[in-house]
Amino acid sequence: MASAPPSGSAPPSEGAAGFRQRLAEYETLLEIGVELAGTLDRQRVLELALQHAERLCRAETGSIWELDEERGELFFRVVRGQVAGRIRDLRVPLGTGIVGAVAVSGEPALVTDAERDPRWRGDAASEFHTRSVLAVPLVARGRVIGVLQLLNALDREAFDADDLRRLRLFAGPLAHALENARLHEAEKRQFIDTVTALAEAVEKRDPYTGGHIRRVVCYSLLLGRELGLERSELERLWVGAALHDIGKIAIPDAILRKESPLDDEERSTMERHALEGAEIVARVRSLRPLVPVVRNHHERIDGNGYPDHLAGEAIPLAARIVAVADTYDAMTSDRPYRRGLDPGVAAAEIIGQAGRQHAPEVVAAFARLYERGELTLAAGEELLASLSGHPDTD
Amino acid sequence: MASAPPSGSAPPSEGAAGFRQRLAEYETLLEIGVELAGTLDRQRVLELALQHAERLCRAETGSIWELDEERGELFFRVVRGQVAGRIRDLRVPLGTGIVGAVAVSGEPALVTDAERDPRWRGDAASEFHTRSVLAVPLVARGRVIGVLQLLNALDREAFDADDLRRLRLFAGPLAHALENARLHEAEKRQFIDTVTALAEAVEKRDPYTGGHIRRVVCYSLLLGRELGLERSELERLWVGAALHDIGKIAIPDAILRKESPLDDEERSTMERHALEGAEIVARVRSLRPLVPVVRNHHERIDGNGYPDHLAGEAIPLAARIVAVADTYDAMTSDRPYRRGLDPGVAAAEIIGQAGRQHAPEVVAAFARLYERGELTLAAGEELLASLSGHPDTD
Repeated sequence: MASAPPSGSAPPSEGAAGFRQRLAEYETLLEIGVELAGTLDRQRVLELALQHAERLCRAETGSIWELDEERGELFFRVVRGQVAGRIRDLRVPLGTGIVGAVAVSGEPALVTDAERDPRWRGDAASEFHTRSVLAVPLVARGRVIGVLQLLNALDREAFDADDLRRLRLFAGPLAHALENARLHEAEKRQFIDTVTALAEAVEKRDPYTGGHIRRVVCYSLLLGRELGLERSELERLWVGAALHDIGKIAIPDAILRKESPLDDEERSTMERHALEGAEIVARVRSLRPLVPVVRNHHERIDGNGYPDHLAGEAIPLAARIVAVADTYDAMTSDRPYRRGLDPGVAAAEIIGQAGRQHAPEVVAAFARLYERGELTLAAGEELLASLSGHPDTD
Repeated sequence: MASAPPSGSAPPSEGAAGFRQRLAEYETLLEIGVELAGTLDRQRVLELALQHAERLCRAETGSIWELDEERGELFFRVVRGQVAGRIRDLRVPLGTGIVGAVAVSGEPALVTDAERDPRWRGDAASEFHTRSVLAVPLVARGRVIGVLQLLNALDREAFDADDLRRLRLFAGPLAHALENARLHEAEKRQFIDTVTALAEAVEKRDPYTGGHIRRVVCYSLLLGRELGLERSELERLWVGAALHDIGKIAIPDAILRKESPLDDEERSTMERHALEGAEIVARVRSLRPLVPVVRNHHERIDGNGYPDHLAGEAIPLAARIVAVADTYDAMTSDRPYRRGLDPGVAAAEIIGQAGRQHAPEVVAAFARLYERGELTLAAGEELLASLSGHPDTD
């Protein structure tokens, strides 16, 4: 395996002190390996790894590049140092430059003077002057997935064979941690994308609600973030909001597609969608925490909603959030028997319902977002992209 | 972190030789760490880990226990040695025995003579005599997730402090590899369970097809296994088979629920479900490989199917498989206008359609399974359970 410690690595040179130093170094590598394996958050793996790599080989700065196989390019995943902001969007074709050469050959590069290396293509930012370069391939499951590069050895001329040996030992745990985090992200994304696609297909049976789910998801997550929910809570809210109307699958066409207002019996059939949806979601053990969102997104804070006539804090927060998002979108959308309201009018009406239809703290968050002009589909889409990992790679 | 190398670990005792041995040991640990991080297959992680642990500490045998938090028990994940078969189903309440004590305290146990240890509860199998025990907790993300236990030091009286130190260093990478594999399994399972629940909810609109999807999934996977598909291919087939009729979501009630045979126009509307389903699945980038299964599960091997009139090998294998599973279940199920056929009659008819409606190699696999009495829902459910990880834990 390319990432295993190079066999026959040179023994430490200077007797007991050298051995002691090597042992300490291996203990550090073992610790770092455990630390990297302990997170599946890709951004965190990258930042931790770069810090450790710079310290391990005493480098001025460094970067981690990821391979985009489809486009045959490498792109920055993480970069540190003062020029980071300016070069963050740099992309390098495979085979170009030192990093590109390392990715293609799978062999590391130890360059003592960059300007004399034929692969060197100059510094991307004029404020930075590269002298020495150390770059190792990141290999996971037999494939090169990226490159770890360090620039400018600190307090000495250049990186040496010992730095290279250390960095190669470090590249193994890093590559696997990155690959595991990538898989984890891809799986989360496949899950939410599939749930959304199926929920949207259900929604399409009702020709007047096109895009409703997408908008309710966006507004719900914007509200959730404004209310201070954490990333994992937002991810759960996303799935709950996407599934909030899934129970409509059980409502007959004759009621779902009716072009005039529903009579009492029809309305009570229609209202069954909350229970039907809860039943569908409850069938998946790991989705059970979402049952209340689906079941209770039509409750009112004054207790006059359905199906359980819950009031106040008895309504789960996620359901209170989706209720506001759902109402706002329904009010601003056209229906067969009425045109959608102007957003300002709808917002004023929702704000007026604080403590009656809607939860005061959610309405307050709604009002702040609306006031700042941030309750938009575009802002929501941006939030979704940031939750589902880097949008440019998967 | 409990799983980091114990700080201030004793230096090697015997000069250069001791140092060299310690260095070699650390290199081995680094290699093993990379190897464990490189797989997300839980069973493989467990088996690899146990082999390495036994070698690392020269033990006669060993086991890895996993914590079942809900039940407050530990259960065997993997065990080696001659009595493995007999004790595989053993469960131990938290706090009971040496393993149970280690799980509760989070502290390792180094026992030189088991029979003198108050926590010891005797050997589970009379053929095996435990003398010395070494057990370390597996800690991932700050939580004890299990225990790694070794029994009987080889060629010496008992395990020593050095064995304990080594095993603790090993426990960190192992715990994280196990936890990552567990998460990966749980995510795959949540995905397939959710897709199945939503597909079954769609199916429920048609009151005469209850359980159809589940049965088509089971028959398809049994056929796939009989045809030699690999695990990852079977997992894909599972999702494809679950979604094969998802396009029915777009078919109006009036046609879907009609209790008499469909006229030509109605049938052509009904046949649109293959295209509608393909469109839904195509919306999820990572599901695109499944589009052909959904789109082409009503093709015929002689080219007279729909919607693309593909023939022979031009029909993707997964679609050929689902076609047989789907037909067999449709033939043996009751419909409003006819009773289901006897399985033997249906099987004979499918076999007679080899080369006309169905693919010969799939029909051959079908015939073998039917002949052996293995084309049953129960056999299918067992296969599903084995594909989705240990059924008793998630």
